[in-house]
Amino acid sequence: MRLMVGTGVSGQGVYLVEGDWAWSLTMADGRVGPDLRAIVDGHVDLNALVAERDKVDAEPLSSLTPGLPIARPGKIICLGLNYVDHIKEGGYDVPTYPALFMRSVTSMIPAGAPMVRPSCSEQLDYEAELMVIIGKGGKHIAEDDALDHVFGYTLFNDGSVREYQRKTHQWTPGKNFDGTGPVGPVVVTPDELPKGAEGLKIESRVGSEILQSATTSDMLWSVARTIATVSEFTTLEPGDYLAMGTPPGVGHAKKPPRWLRPGETVEVEIEGIGVCANPVVAEEDVRATEAAE
Amino acid sequence: MRLMVGTGVSGQGVYLVEGDWAWSLTMADGRVGPDLRAIVDGHVDLNALVAERDKVDAEPLSSLTPGLPIARPGKIICLGLNYVDHIKEGGYDVPTYPALFMRSVTSMIPAGAPMVRPSCSEQLDYEAELMVIIGKGGKHIAEDDALDHVFGYTLFNDGSVREYQRKTHQWTPGKNFDGTGPVGPVVVTPDELPKGAEGLKIESRVGSEILQSATTSDMLWSVARTIATVSEFTTLEPGDYLAMGTPPGVGHAKKPPRWLRPGETVEVEIEGIGVCANPVVAEEDVRATEAAE
Repeated sequence: MRLMVGTGVSGQGVYLVEGDWAWSLTMADGRVGPDLRAIVDGHVDLNALVAERDKVDAEPLSSLTPGLPIARPGKIICLGLNYVDHIKEGGYDVPTYPALFMRSVTSMIPAGAPMVRPSCSEQLDYEAELMVIIGKGGKHIAEDDALDHVFGYTLFNDGSVREYQRKTHQWTPGKNFDGTGPVGPVVVTPDELPKGAEGLKIESRVGSEILQSATTSDMLWSVARTIATVSEFTTLEPGDYLAMGTPPGVGHAKKPPRWLRPGETVEVEIEGIGVCANPVVAEEDVRATEAAE
Repeated sequence: MRLMVGTGVSGQGVYLVEGDWAWSLTMADGRVGPDLRAIVDGHVDLNALVAERDKVDAEPLSSLTPGLPIARPGKIICLGLNYVDHIKEGGYDVPTYPALFMRSVTSMIPAGAPMVRPSCSEQLDYEAELMVIIGKGGKHIAEDDALDHVFGYTLFNDGSVREYQRKTHQWTPGKNFDGTGPVGPVVVTPDELPKGAEGLKIESRVGSEILQSATTSDMLWSVARTIATVSEFTTLEPGDYLAMGTPPGVGHAKKPPRWLRPGETVEVEIEGIGVCANPVVAEEDVRATEAAE
């Protein structure tokens, strides 16, 4: 099924999405809560709930304002170099272990929200990625069992301020600017997609300009292998995000570099999941708007 | 004042600590909750509460089992290279920007809890650190105002599995093994310490063996400068942890390397704050104990 956290006529909550319509599961059952937390924690029987969706009125999907699928995740683990051609364009060697970093939730924004180009740097870059949301938690998860731990798949734009990513060998600052990590809007359960979400076309675009275009089959570490690798050292918890890395075509590797500019809208699309589109806004303008409110 | 999250006769909660005695502020006022969250969020007037501590009976401090000061922080940001002599022993150049990484809360444990040497590596290393707990949040915090954003200081042992820290250029895996990051037990408010917690002796030990011994004045980035630097890219939130890096003397730089071994107890001490002591336990033994429970 396809789920979306958002705010509509029925208030903020989880919506079931079918075609162009959405039903508020939160209104149908108060235990669902404002985001996917109660569902991934297993406190709500999703199938039973979906069967009763006609308790509430359908709303046009286009009228919903998306929210974060999980508002306060325990952790957000990201793969840095997971597509061979992207590794080469960055000047890195092909690793024998994934290059992992973390993002904080303060850097994450919903689909549709302004993606912020900070005032300290013009080097805001896009990275189209498959995002995994963990369902069942665990440690030392075997690769063969790993896909049982996936709650669903969504879209991620791993927005990166390159100048700060490379200030030292640790990428953390450039990967954690406020408002640079769009995620969502729709979370698709695994039964709707190929196993491990493989073989899906993945793209990023600004208008008609195609920035990245590849397939998720080109990932070095599959979803299952990543879950096994990561859970060797850390307990995965329900609601954790796992970002699967980006294909080639990022802005800093283009000649000349192709930074995101205020006024543009950047889109990430993965076949069968949907589109995550965010307008780029200068931090100065965000702050001016906030001050005026 | 000195505060400790722990479990005593009065249950799990926040305790005021004076000398060898502790008073449950959580029992005195239910709004305090099980950890420091409600206090750092500003929902409770700490001074008013402390004035009424005689509402509850004192308990011997030694009878408390410590908990995490903040159980579910928004983020944990760590400085990697903040003491010149530690930078040199690791073979790194002195950076012009702090090397920042993140830890997940699943890697953190209270003082006194077993520090886990994973089954996949013998290279468990200690790192004595000053830990800052953010009080008032903010973005673009000026260095001159930064110390107003500190709720308190505590101890941290930034336990690191070196083999995994250096699998790639990104340190995340080696810094995020479950049960490797002891924090606490006592959180000291800034009024009890020198400005920015500078000039304090910092040490790590196993028994009578002194592993690290330095002063917090040797930090390249002061607490204030770190808050200013970090808040340039990320909004600091109440309850965020900020780990200030470790002085020289870590195990991997000793010849031969000095890894922590099961059966040892590792202590981190900072003058005026206290001692964080944790027994080292092999993961196999932790899992056997859990299975038996």
